[in-house]
Amino acid sequence: MRRLFSVEEKENFTVVSFTFDEFLSPDFLKKLVPPKVDFRKGVILSGRGPIWFYGYLIHFYHPSKFIAAYDPRLGGAVVVESHCDEHEVGDLIKV
Amino acid sequence: MRRLFSVEEKENFTVVSFTFDEFLSPDFLKKLVPPKVDFRKGVILSGRGPIWFYGYLIHFYHPSKFIAAYDPRLGGAVVVESHCDEHEVGDLIKV
Repeated sequence: MRRLFSVEEKENFTVVSFTFDEFLSPDFLKKLVPPKVDFRKGVILSGRGPIWFYGYLIHFYHPSKFIAAYDPRLGGAVVVESHCDEHEVGDLIKV
Repeated sequence: MRRLFSVEEKENFTVVSFTFDEFLSPDFLKKLVPPKVDFRKGVILSGRGPIWFYGYLIHFYHPSKFIAAYDPRLGGAVVVESHCDEHEVGDLIKV
């Protein structure tokens, strides 16, 4: 399977985006190695994928400063966990 | 907003299901109190909701034995994190 992660560095967070060109099998998670990021910054996840794929990434990036998931309907990313004072859970980060 | 969590106890895991009758605002997460579960068991999340709502719940239930997200296309729940030997990440639990 061809898969594509792309990583964009911003001052306070890293945007980890992905696209898939095929149906994703859960087995795929067993050998998945997501991009490394600087855990001192936050992570914004963006892309279309199954809920469990996001679930895996959210767990994977748990040590980062905060994690937010991009929602195109909101035009921004919603913070789902945070270990810092700048962003709290439920905040919308415009991107 | 009317919201509905329902909880179903199984031997090895708790199924936490949800439905929403309205558009969900991210602010909603700030006062959300998801159902308590027995962290000695796994948690299976099921329902239609924004990716960030799932993200929040996956973080919330992090201390449980494992977490899986139900995918109706697969007829089961995909394990996204695990702290036990019985289920590993990427396993499909038929439910």
